[in-house]
Amino acid sequence: MSGNKASKQKPCHHCKNRPASAPPGTSMIHYEKFWLYRHCSSVQQRDRQAQKAGQLFSGLLAMNVVFLGSAFISSMIFNHVAITLADLWILLSILKVLCLCWIIYYLLGTSRQPHAVLYRDSHAGPIWIRGSVLLFGSFSILLNVFQIGYSAILIQCKSRVEIVFPSIEIVFIFTQAFFLWHHSKDCIQVQHNFTRCGLMLTIATNLLLWLLAVTNDTIHMEIESQLREVEQRFEGKTASCTCPNTTICKVFQKGYILLYPFNTEYCLVCCSVLYVMWKNVGRRISHHHVPHIKPKFKLQGVVFGPLLGTIAVIIGICVFMMYQIQATGSAPNHQVFVMYYSYYIVLLPLMSVGAVIGTIIHALEKKELDTLKNPTRSLDVILLMGAALGQIAMSYFSIVAIVATDPRDLLNSLILSHSVLLIFQNITQNVFIIDGLHRQPFAAATEARHTEHTGEQAVASELPGEEDTTTSSNREHTQMSPGKEEEMKEEQNHEAYDQRRVNMLELGQEIRKVSLSYIHSYSHLSWKRRALREISFFLVLCNIILWVMPTFGAHPVFENGLEKSFYGYSTWFAIVNFGLPLGVFYRMHSVGGLLEVYITA
Amino acid sequence: MSGNKASKQKPCHHCKNRPASAPPGTSMIHYEKFWLYRHCSSVQQRDRQAQKAGQLFSGLLAMNVVFLGSAFISSMIFNHVAITLADLWILLSILKVLCLCWIIYYLLGTSRQPHAVLYRDSHAGPIWIRGSVLLFGSFSILLNVFQIGYSAILIQCKSRVEIVFPSIEIVFIFTQAFFLWHHSKDCIQVQHNFTRCGLMLTIATNLLLWLLAVTNDTIHMEIESQLREVEQRFEGKTASCTCPNTTICKVFQKGYILLYPFNTEYCLVCCSVLYVMWKNVGRRISHHHVPHIKPKFKLQGVVFGPLLGTIAVIIGICVFMMYQIQATGSAPNHQVFVMYYSYYIVLLPLMSVGAVIGTIIHALEKKELDTLKNPTRSLDVILLMGAALGQIAMSYFSIVAIVATDPRDLLNSLILSHSVLLIFQNITQNVFIIDGLHRQPFAAATEARHTEHTGEQAVASELPGEEDTTTSSNREHTQMSPGKEEEMKEEQNHEAYDQRRVNMLELGQEIRKVSLSYIHSYSHLSWKRRALREISFFLVLCNIILWVMPTFGAHPVFENGLEKSFYGYSTWFAIVNFGLPLGVFYRMHSVGGLLEVYITA
Repeated sequence: MSGNKASKQKPCHHCKNRPASAPPGTSMIHYEKFWLYRHCSSVQQRDRQAQKAGQLFSGLLAMNVVFLGSAFISSMIFNHVAITLADLWILLSILKVLCLCWIIYYLLGTSRQPHAVLYRDSHAGPIWIRGSVLLFGSFSILLNVFQIGYSAILIQCKSRVEIVFPSIEIVFIFTQAFFLWHHSKDCIQVQHNFTRCGLMLTIATNLLLWLLAVTNDTIHMEIESQLREVEQRFEGKTASCTCPNTTICKVFQKGYILLYPFNTEYCLVCCSVLYVMWKNVGRRISHHHVPHIKPKFKLQGVVFGPLLGTIAVIIGICVFMMYQIQATGSAPNHQVFVMYYSYYIVLLPLMSVGAVIGTIIHALEKKELDTLKNPTRSLDVILLMGAALGQIAMSYFSIVAIVATDPRDLLNSLILSHSVLLIFQNITQNVFIIDGLHRQPFAAATEARHTEHTGEQAVASELPGEEDTTTSSNREHTQMSPGKEEEMKEEQNHEAYDQRRVNMLELGQEIRKVSLSYIHSYSHLSWKRRALREISFFLVLCNIILWVMPTFGAHPVFENGLEKSFYGYSTWFAIVNFGLPLGVFYRMHSVGGLLEVYITA
Repeated sequence: MSGNKASKQKPCHHCKNRPASAPPGTSMIHYEKFWLYRHCSSVQQRDRQAQKAGQLFSGLLAMNVVFLGSAFISSMIFNHVAITLADLWILLSILKVLCLCWIIYYLLGTSRQPHAVLYRDSHAGPIWIRGSVLLFGSFSILLNVFQIGYSAILIQCKSRVEIVFPSIEIVFIFTQAFFLWHHSKDCIQVQHNFTRCGLMLTIATNLLLWLLAVTNDTIHMEIESQLREVEQRFEGKTASCTCPNTTICKVFQKGYILLYPFNTEYCLVCCSVLYVMWKNVGRRISHHHVPHIKPKFKLQGVVFGPLLGTIAVIIGICVFMMYQIQATGSAPNHQVFVMYYSYYIVLLPLMSVGAVIGTIIHALEKKELDTLKNPTRSLDVILLMGAALGQIAMSYFSIVAIVATDPRDLLNSLILSHSVLLIFQNITQNVFIIDGLHRQPFAAATEARHTEHTGEQAVASELPGEEDTTTSSNREHTQMSPGKEEEMKEEQNHEAYDQRRVNMLELGQEIRKVSLSYIHSYSHLSWKRRALREISFFLVLCNIILWVMPTFGAHPVFENGLEKSFYGYSTWFAIVNFGLPLGVFYRMHSVGGLLEVYITA
């Protein structure tokens, strides 16, 4: 016990003498301890309780930071005389510097301790998440560069502090992106509580940055709709500080407005990755549960999904362009809203039907469920459901507003059906994705074995319902890859026919029956799997276009004016404020989930 | 499989022939099925997945109902021309009638099916929760009776509908209270999904009633502060509809205002009980895990806790009375706020210190942790943390407001310290309660055995740290009850001394050593346990007074005017709206949790 304690504080020297390739044994594991639970009888139980207590205390830390920050932000919004944006930036800069210190300590200290990272969670930080961290991170850095440039041009009426803050922000974004890229899979085994607190502090900082970005983002919506009236109130103290008519200043200003949404998404994505890391602190993964090689993304064997999806994307882009041209004009046209909502009304039922068919196919498929604990997947499910709430809440508010005013008007009935369909689409898609994430990627696992040419036996029979017909040919089939299916299908058929012709004389009627049932079930399965891939690919593309449109500034819920006049400006503003960023995040996250469904189908 | 399905739809006749006392075997268990998961290999896995899917779908149902209702309520608040209170009442009445139908079906149909309730969760619906359901339910019924009477007197300017709605409400409250009183412990094993949907619908209805009550409750706060100005806007369409100067009308009106807070609490308590029932649908409890006899509440052995607590309560009531007399006057006095906040500033540190000492004693005690899964306890923990958020958020908003204005003023510095202390008190108390709930009530379990005179062996040694000294005298000790401790302590001491005098000659030095260490550890443990009881009793009384004060109308956060002028009327109104009812619920729930800690200490 005392040796264990000592090894926690300084590098454990006697462990270093062991060969590095030894499997992680109990001697390397740093069980957690907590003063509240010193008297537990078993080490495992004490470890588990210490883990819970550590999570509780670090969660409390984050809660306090978030509440303090939220109170600051609200004060700034509702009383911008007493609390200015500068005060808020000072608070956030302090938090960022603290996070930076912890991240650097983690990179140089904690993670380099012996046996610090014994396990890596293969589900955490998939490539599309880490890629989006990098992408959004770069855009956010660019945004801050623009902001520095903009402030530098208008230096005569802005304080020098407005150059210092974005610089800290750039350092923070860069360091955090680097940290998440390299360490998002870590299950750290040393300094548990300190690491938890550091992660929670970083999460709280990102959440506060998101909150601030959300309030600023909607102010940018206003910039466009209310023609720069609000910007002057918010940004400069003197109204004379307008951008001189140089190209560079206009570029900075426009780029600043265009890049803003990415900053919002960056914060949300970082929060979710950091949360998974926090859940993984002190987690020990038994090695036989982890499939070491993930299936790769392959485009083979899908035709209709990409085709339909591409059509949807192209039409969507046209609609979006026309909407943007019309809506940014002085008075938004009635026609353009009809066009926009009609597009949604055609697209959403298609997506819903796709998701429902996909769910039915999942039910028909004879696949085992993956019921192992998996924090990444649990988070995915929670985030999907939580992010969908934003759009669903907004839709219900729209529905009540329209039903109470005049549902028989053309535009109103369009908005009404759009809202109803959106709720339905969100729910069916969520069910489809959640169900898909819980299916075992058995084909992928066997593909990995196949590729590696290891002598392992196939563990699970692919056809649990038809176990009585299992033969060697069947086992051969389970080792088939889903990607190579299309290539090997014909080969296999030929082989099967050849073999049958030889064997028929030798083994007679029985084997023929087995082979026939095998071919039947094979083509049967292949059909289902292909349909799943078509559907998920189609949904991926649809979600991308539905993600792009609000991200780049199409906010008809705000611009059509119906709900705004019903609920009153400030209330609807608050609702949209809450719903829209969540909706954008939902689309992005759906794309990730659907890609996973596509790969494992 | 088909037989199982048939037994789900009609009473399973072949089971009836078995003796009723037979332990619940697999033949009586109705495993859940769901069309999505027909192809799972094991029955258990299919059952678990079906359970998850059922929870997901019933949760989605509740979510949709809640969102629809929230949109209605918001519409009524922000646009009371298009959506009137009557529209909302119609919606809620439809929901209530649906819930009533389900509850009656459950009482007469579902729960009477053979093997419907094989297990009862002994942790669910403890007596204090069911008691508060009854108490708040009766008050809510009385409230509605007053409302009917009030409407009947003013029938000339109110619609007849305002008598119909409270009548439906009375039937709903009565049936629901009856249902929760008798069935809150059920782990229903038939018609899983239908029951889940029914429970979720009832939860959603209660949540909406709570939301409506909260918006109305704060309007009643206004009634008192803004001198009936708002009431006329809200209740009657014609301003001439004022209460005639008869006693009965005044009683109805005053009773209506006084009883309102209980309705809010009734809805919240029902929600929490229903949620536990929902979690328990389809749950199978292994019998050896359940302690059949719960320890009883006994007042013996505590002196300082009740004494200090009673003093706190008496002073609190005096402060509250003076506050109410002063604050309901036309202009609230500066002095009365100083008195009110000073009371809090003295009380809160005492409570925090008590909670911290309690937590330290928990850590010192050599007790095993109860790490079994327990939905009631998980819910308790979540509710404690969640309800505390309301008060903590309000405190942070106060802190920011005061720091930004003038923290050096006497009243402001009092409010500031009050807010800081409140945050600290909430957190320490939560840690103390959560930690206490996870401790094994081993003493209680052994007491139960002792009372029953069953011949079971004591399973767990009371002193796991001193297992090497376990003798027969030690085992005898483990069967001692904590309540009878005080009476038996002297007896035991005498016995020990007598026995020692005889044995000393026979067994010599060794037994003497054992006995001495036993007496030492015994008095040691007893001291700790008594301290825990004193602390929890003191905290119970303090929480009761802190619960009574805001419930019966002391809302200084609203009446002191500081935050109101800082954030603006409507913003602070919304924050208080969110925070105050949660704060009241937090105090009530803390009382329950602390009582449990007291009993099991």
